Amino acid sequence: MGSESNNLEFLKEIGLGSTNIGSFINGQWKANGSSVTSVNPSTNQTIATVTEATVADYEEGLQACSEAAKTWMTIPAPKRGEIVRQIGDALRAKLDPLGRLVSLEMGKILAEGVGEVQEIIDMCDYAVGLSRQLNGSIIPSERPDHMMFEVWNPLGIVGVITAFNFPCAVLGWNACIALVCGNCVVWKGAPTTPLITIAVTKLISEVLEKNKLPGAIFTSFCGGADIGEAISKDTRIPLVSFTGSSKVGSIVQKTVTERFGKCLLELSGNNAIIVMDDADIKLAVRSIFFAAVGTAGQRCTTCRRLYLHESIYTNVLDQLAGLYKQVKIGNPLEKGILVGPLHTRSSVENFKKGIAAIKSQAWKILTGGTVLESEGNFVQPTIVEISSDAAVVKEELFAPVLYVMKFQNLEEAIALNNSVPQGLSSSIFTQTPNTIFKWIGPRGSDCGIVNVNIPTNGAEIGGAFGGEKATGGGREAGSDSWKQYMRRSTCTINYGSELPLAQGINFG
Amino acid sequence: MGSESNNLEFLKEIGLGSTNIGSFINGQWKANGSSVTSVNPSTNQTIATVTEATVADYEEGLQACSEAAKTWMTIPAPKRGEIVRQIGDALRAKLDPLGRLVSLEMGKILAEGVGEVQEIIDMCDYAVGLSRQLNGSIIPSERPDHMMFEVWNPLGIVGVITAFNFPCAVLGWNACIALVCGNCVVWKGAPTTPLITIAVTKLISEVLEKNKLPGAIFTSFCGGADIGEAISKDTRIPLVSFTGSSKVGSIVQKTVTERFGKCLLELSGNNAIIVMDDADIKLAVRSIFFAAVGTAGQRCTTCRRLYLHESIYTNVLDQLAGLYKQVKIGNPLEKGILVGPLHTRSSVENFKKGIAAIKSQAWKILTGGTVLESEGNFVQPTIVEISSDAAVVKEELFAPVLYVMKFQNLEEAIALNNSVPQGLSSSIFTQTPNTIFKWIGPRGSDCGIVNVNIPTNGAEIGGAFGGEKATGGGREAGSDSWKQYMRRSTCTINYGSELPLAQGINFG
Amino acid sequence: MGSESNNLEFLKEIGLGSTNIGSFINGQWKANGSSVTSVNPSTNQTIATVTEATVADYEEGLQACSEAAKTWMTIPAPKRGEIVRQIGDALRAKLDPLGRLVSLEMGKILAEGVGEVQEIIDMCDYAVGLSRQLNGSIIPSERPDHMMFEVWNPLGIVGVITAFNFPCAVLGWNACIALVCGNCVVWKGAPTTPLITIAVTKLISEVLEKNKLPGAIFTSFCGGADIGEAISKDTRIPLVSFTGSSKVGSIVQKTVTERFGKCLLELSGNNAIIVMDDADIKLAVRSIFFAAVGTAGQRCTTCRRLYLHESIYTNVLDQLAGLYKQVKIGNPLEKGILVGPLHTRSSVENFKKGIAAIKSQAWKILTGGTVLESEGNFVQPTIVEISSDAAVVKEELFAPVLYVMKFQNLEEAIALNNSVPQGLSSSIFTQTPNTIFKWIGPRGSDCGIVNVNIPTNGAEIGGAFGGEKATGGGREAGSDSWKQYMRRSTCTINYGSELPLAQGINFG
Amino acid sequence: MGSESNNLEFLKEIGLGSTNIGSFINGQWKANGSSVTSVNPSTNQTIATVTEATVADYEEGLQACSEAAKTWMTIPAPKRGEIVRQIGDALRAKLDPLGRLVSLEMGKILAEGVGEVQEIIDMCDYAVGLSRQLNGSIIPSERPDHMMFEVWNPLGIVGVITAFNFPCAVLGWNACIALVCGNCVVWKGAPTTPLITIAVTKLISEVLEKNKLPGAIFTSFCGGADIGEAISKDTRIPLVSFTGSSKVGSIVQKTVTERFGKCLLELSGNNAIIVMDDADIKLAVRSIFFAAVGTAGQRCTTCRRLYLHESIYTNVLDQLAGLYKQVKIGNPLEKGILVGPLHTRSSVENFKKGIAAIKSQAWKILTGGTVLESEGNFVQPTIVEISSDAAVVKEELFAPVLYVMKFQNLEEAIALNNSVPQGLSSSIFTQTPNTIFKWIGPRGSDCGIVNVNIPTNGAEIGGAFGGEKATGGGREAGSDSWKQYMRRSTCTINYGSELPLAQGINFG
Repeated sequence: MGSESNNLEFLKEIGLGSTNIGSFINGQWKANGSSVTSVNPSTNQTIATVTEATVADYEEGLQACSEAAKTWMTIPAPKRGEIVRQIGDALRAKLDPLGRLVSLEMGKILAEGVGEVQEIIDMCDYAVGLSRQLNGSIIPSERPDHMMFEVWNPLGIVGVITAFNFPCAVLGWNACIALVCGNCVVWKGAPTTPLITIAVTKLISEVLEKNKLPGAIFTSFCGGADIGEAISKDTRIPLVSFTGSSKVGSIVQKTVTERFGKCLLELSGNNAIIVMDDADIKLAVRSIFFAAVGTAGQRCTTCRRLYLHESIYTNVLDQLAGLYKQVKIGNPLEKGILVGPLHTRSSVENFKKGIAAIKSQAWKILTGGTVLESEGNFVQPTIVEISSDAAVVKEELFAPVLYVMKFQNLEEAIALNNSVPQGLSSSIFTQTPNTIFKWIGPRGSDCGIVNVNIPTNGAEIGGAFGGEKATGGGREAGSDSWKQYMRRSTCTINYGSELPLAQGINFG
Repeated sequence: MGSESNNLEFLKEIGLGSTNIGSFINGQWKANGSSVTSVNPSTNQTIATVTEATVADYEEGLQACSEAAKTWMTIPAPKRGEIVRQIGDALRAKLDPLGRLVSLEMGKILAEGVGEVQEIIDMCDYAVGLSRQLNGSIIPSERPDHMMFEVWNPLGIVGVITAFNFPCAVLGWNACIALVCGNCVVWKGAPTTPLITIAVTKLISEVLEKNKLPGAIFTSFCGGADIGEAISKDTRIPLVSFTGSSKVGSIVQKTVTERFGKCLLELSGNNAIIVMDDADIKLAVRSIFFAAVGTAGQRCTTCRRLYLHESIYTNVLDQLAGLYKQVKIGNPLEKGILVGPLHTRSSVENFKKGIAAIKSQAWKILTGGTVLESEGNFVQPTIVEISSDAAVVKEELFAPVLYVMKFQNLEEAIALNNSVPQGLSSSIFTQTPNTIFKWIGPRGSDCGIVNVNIPTNGAEIGGAFGGEKATGGGREAGSDSWKQYMRRSTCTINYGSELPLAQGINFG
Repeated sequence: MGSESNNLEFLKEIGLGSTNIGSFINGQWKANGSSVTSVNPSTNQTIATVTEATVADYEEGLQACSEAAKTWMTIPAPKRGEIVRQIGDALRAKLDPLGRLVSLEMGKILAEGVGEVQEIIDMCDYAVGLSRQLNGSIIPSERPDHMMFEVWNPLGIVGVITAFNFPCAVLGWNACIALVCGNCVVWKGAPTTPLITIAVTKLISEVLEKNKLPGAIFTSFCGGADIGEAISKDTRIPLVSFTGSSKVGSIVQKTVTERFGKCLLELSGNNAIIVMDDADIKLAVRSIFFAAVGTAGQRCTTCRRLYLHESIYTNVLDQLAGLYKQVKIGNPLEKGILVGPLHTRSSVENFKKGIAAIKSQAWKILTGGTVLESEGNFVQPTIVEISSDAAVVKEELFAPVLYVMKFQNLEEAIALNNSVPQGLSSSIFTQTPNTIFKWIGPRGSDCGIVNVNIPTNGAEIGGAFGGEKATGGGREAGSDSWKQYMRRSTCTINYGSELPLAQGINFG
Repeated sequence: MGSESNNLEFLKEIGLGSTNIGSFINGQWKANGSSVTSVNPSTNQTIATVTEATVADYEEGLQACSEAAKTWMTIPAPKRGEIVRQIGDALRAKLDPLGRLVSLEMGKILAEGVGEVQEIIDMCDYAVGLSRQLNGSIIPSERPDHMMFEVWNPLGIVGVITAFNFPCAVLGWNACIALVCGNCVVWKGAPTTPLITIAVTKLISEVLEKNKLPGAIFTSFCGGADIGEAISKDTRIPLVSFTGSSKVGSIVQKTVTERFGKCLLELSGNNAIIVMDDADIKLAVRSIFFAAVGTAGQRCTTCRRLYLHESIYTNVLDQLAGLYKQVKIGNPLEKGILVGPLHTRSSVENFKKGIAAIKSQAWKILTGGTVLESEGNFVQPTIVEISSDAAVVKEELFAPVLYVMKFQNLEEAIALNNSVPQGLSSSIFTQTPNTIFKWIGPRGSDCGIVNVNIPTNGAEIGGAFGGEKATGGGREAGSDSWKQYMRRSTCTINYGSELPLAQGINFG
């Protein structure tokens, strides 16, 4: 662990060592793949090593998981809720070290690392209540002595493939709901955040063990594209929840739907904030700042496009530039730091390419635009004045680069917001009811998340999270997202002795 | 119209002549494609001719439809409901001639033809009420001075591609809901049932006209695969509802999802009935008979597999065979006829191929199995004793061929029911509560429709209709199927002046 | 019918003559009570005479109704919906003459008379859809092999006692829902609007007859307090829906609850409009005018209290006074008339008493305040400047008298809005999101109806109508109001052979 | 504490001593009323003494509570959920001593005492999830530029008056929901179970204190009828939840409704079990035994009436009598004991009176019927053969007395089940689907709880608990019971500049 080891004592609290086995199969930690390193993005030094799973490991895991599914789905839902409650408590007890690990391995600042773990805990609490509310319906039948039921049954196994930027919250959104719904979970975490995958899996596995339940109910893999592909192709997995880019998501979707499986996709965002002339500018500026530089621009909900009404354009831009110039960049575990590193060296390369493209098209970089000299992956948060026609504006550059554009009226602003392939998140700042309700209405934002006077990022779990168009259409966390994790049976029961037919048809 | 013309006077009542224009574009009847004939499957004589749409016609239609969508989506939902109410009344006024046309052109018996039209009327009545209940949610926010909304907005345009076997009911399931949800509808009917497509479109268009609404709100095409492909590829159509085979559905799904559109798929069924030893045998026999021979075996919910408990195997089979031998086959418009023709000559060829395969594998044809000598497409309803391992049992043969198999206990029967790729409909006959609740529970039938003591076919509109696995996963008609026709916006509104963050995160 | 007879030809269209039998019992028109006259409030001349029901008639009606209830409740809900659809169509066909009758007999202007009948038609359309959505729930059980159901069953008979000011819409709110829910309806209309009671009952009874259903499903009485009391005391009537004053409602509630029956109360309103300094004044003035003088101040949702922000006080008052001075008072059937008569001479006496009390306390009558010289019951719409402490402000004076008061800030305005015993309707006019959301939030208006930028009156049927506090707490029409018309059964079904207990209790 | 003191050490763990202050007012323990003793019903020895609250104490408590309500209702619901989560954890940590206390002070056996506390914990877990699901609705408006909302706001204060037989679970049902809904709670526990009231209040108060919230959010009183009356009359308490006899409940209801407050009533039960000829007799006998003798017959859901099909009458009765004769009666904290004492000496007197009445009418006491010689309040579980016409069968005798009757068919059995004034719980034992669905359908049991193959008692929290008719009509715990703890605002927001009216009315 080299020079960092002094500060890494806390990893022991959550079951991690300098070498770790990266998959949890049939209730056991075993992995036969290659050894990979987990790297601190602030220093590019190794934190620890992890043995990944092979496809054979995967197969062993899935066989056990399929078997466990038969047990888990017949346990009453409120009892499954009790298990999820205990998982929540286990996470709560380790909130601090887990949050630190997220910050350390992913690179987000500590407040966000802790917030991410808190989000799984919130999900657990929520799912406990839900375990008594996975309600079907009793629907009036048009036929005498008949009853119609809509029954929700478990799918069996849910595959969850998560991304580096929310290395555990996205698992939480999916697993908490999937588990109370009666499904086993097969998790493949991001290849670059294996320690988080392991630490979270350990806590969950301990709860299962304590309750004498098969460990295979929660099966987890550190691994790469081969594991992801195995999940996509596996007919034993009726639902694959995938978080990542639109490009990879499209491939996953094709693979899964070819076998008539279901996908829940959370793909690329390219999120805009609109500031109207009547906005609370102070609120808007704080929000844009958080939305654009938070998590070093690596949230799917990061604000990448900023549309300013011409009358407040200069004012907002000046205030923003002021904040950008003061923002502290550095070790995300350190107090006062607001911008940590990009997650990997390859992210830095992407940033460089993006900036080069911007420059080549002669767009104006107002502030930022350079990579910091350091051992870590630090880049400057960047503001670019650009035309809304520019091709780069349509793409998701996964870095803290904010494109700023001008508009003249609401209709134009909405059209611009809707003019990109992605449809995840969007915000407007205004104090006019008419504007608010148009924005959230039929001809308003076409995104899944449509905010007013708050940033594009920072969703609560009670609502459904996800986006439209190239963002993939999936919905996670709250509302009726749970229905995606179950199969719906429309049942008609004839308890009489006659056979009346629907639509009054007379047959024979 | 030849010798049939005497009986075709009723077609005038619903706006049809001997030649007909096959597409309704921008409020006008125009079509520049080739002329095709609509053929009576009982005689293989021409009923009338129809000019199909070209891809250029399609494009003209879609441009107008896109424009109309902007209007229609901002009309208040209850006002849209009033239009659908009037459509229902227009259909009700023509229930009899429309029903006759369905029987004439598709080939199902008159009772079923009228029942199919009644189903659209039922859908209209249902959708009227729904137009005041497309409710979003107000979700408690964890942040002070914030409110969370889940708002449902129209998608814009819904494409509906329907199949010959329900040439108008499936349009009804989709269009009634799509319209009250604020969407324009683009309909491509089956190539072999163009008269029904035209007649239904005329009634709808008249209602739009009477209410001074753009005709393009309902755009309709008679045409072939090129129009279907155009719909699948069209980014202006966020949702494509497709009814047809799993094979074609898979292609549609691939095309639509590649552009990140959404599909609502109603694909192949291969539906089983299980008869337990404690069943009401009389009820079971009547139900199997209706489910297997009704619509000449051409329903997606037709029973194709029959699993009989060994103790009642002979009894049920004997009774069934008796019914099969007496069943009247012939002109579906004639009283007393229960089995009409297959829809096309090519359907007859398929039947022949299927029977040949069965024979080649030496399975025992108990009754039926031959094509009737006639000008029409009549075949004998057929019962085959077969092993549940036989490959043909896994496939949907779209004809009245029933495979009969034996089982010993419930677990085995359920496993057999679930052993095919398709997952549409399924029924059990039993008088034991334990069996009923196991059948509809987590380890029961894996189909979308799970019946007890009624046939596999004959769904009511109040429930959600559709199936799992290779059946495609879509749900139409009742329950919350309407949500598929809308896009969900998760909105958070900050009406205060502070910026608290979710999960209690403190940023800057 | 005297000199008015020329204009009363339209009454024949809806089955009314110069003498009429006032109760519909066991499918027959019969009544043995005294003969009363229906009086035109514009002229105080007799329209026609009606024989009222006796308590013996009531008893005969209820016996038949109890018997009919056994039939009606077992007819499938969607079939009951079909009956209600036909009732809607029957009303639609007579919209004009029914609307005229409401205007003639009650005294509201024709547009409102027709609107009232339209509201029942809307309710019918809505209830048809609802008849397939009276959904119970299937709730996950914590015990293996158990299912929990929440089933909604009919109550049996619903008593509906309506008031003169909405002589048929209130019946519609209740009866449409009660009927699809499977209940028979016993209706007592207002004693002074018997012709409307009879006309509406005739249309409904004809639909029942056409469908060969017992007429006693809808049982209807013209009569006085003795019939009302009989309904209140009748243990065969599990639910009594009463619309009227808080005073009488309180007595009804006491009588009904003493026998452990249920009440649905729609009692007095005393509704306020608040105009903030940032309001759209034009919109506010039009709304206040409609809310205060519409229906001559005889709606339960009439605006009786007006709170104006001090900064716009004079402006709004001046504009209002201008409108009041021009408003046309007269025969409500005449074009251009906006204010018809008060309903009865006794209403005029109440108005006089109210004005006298206002004057005796030296409050300033800005405009109006007098009874017009005429044969009818016409009074001037009146505006009074008053202190919010004045005792009269706490009471509902059922006449077009508007109390105007001043305030300085939102908190004060809300406190004033909430300071009366009644809690029906309330409106605010503002363009500030913060004000809107505070107004509808936990510390905002305490009324059942909480409007923004629309008047206190004019509710849509899709929402739940009703109020809090002395308004009685009932909710009618949309949302889940239907649940009040059904009884809820929480069912747990054990389909296994073990007896696990809830909360994990171990007994014996 | 006398001779029992050795065993009462555990009381210290939950904050109880030999003398205790019996009310928690404005965050402080203070009480100025008389000193009462808590008595062990097994020995009639004093456990400890408690000072009760005076009406002046009550007033002080309510003033603070009213003030606290303003704070509590504006805290976001999910934050309120977090408090309830902590309350659940606090109870979980003291499950054992609290369960022992319930057993000691109320007299139920330990398994049931612990089960009762577990039920509050379950409610807490459930309410946490619910705190993010107190959803309002967004309802489509028929008017352009209008939105309709159904918003649920807190009531302010909820009064909870509980009975001795569930001295804390009923508080849990109410308080957990009331608190997440944003209400403060005012609790009056039963006069004879003050220690439980104090112990539970202490745990809740500690959570409030730890979170720096006003203690007055939870205000609690040990006291008698004067406190109950004060709650009933208090206009600051919009909702009073009362559990107790129909007789007292009726008085409470009258008092509360006179001031237009709302009641949630859980009153007398008189619950029947029906055993059909096709029942699983073993299951039925075990269930009847638990339902009739459990909690010594002092549950509101205790089975008091047993209807046996004539064909299995003797068989069931013989088996039951066998169990009754073996059942161990005694100290409820002792292992193996199934029947503890009646709660008070006065309960024993009631039992004696009931038995005397039975004997005077010459009904046959099959087993039991006598009071045991002991210092405690022990009586024998009793079976009486009786006619269903007997007047005593219509009344709730709150003791372990079971009336047994015979029937011939389902219709008769249902009629008998429904023939008493009360309507709480009911069960049928059968294996026939037709019987099951008739029993839970429109012409089946008229109770709030309608079970199949389980006893009348032992409800899960996920469903709504409560009964019809003289049982009072309230519903607690799951389903949408929470709506009773909130007020519903139907809001229409006009965000445009026009004023279209509902029902298309044109005014002026």
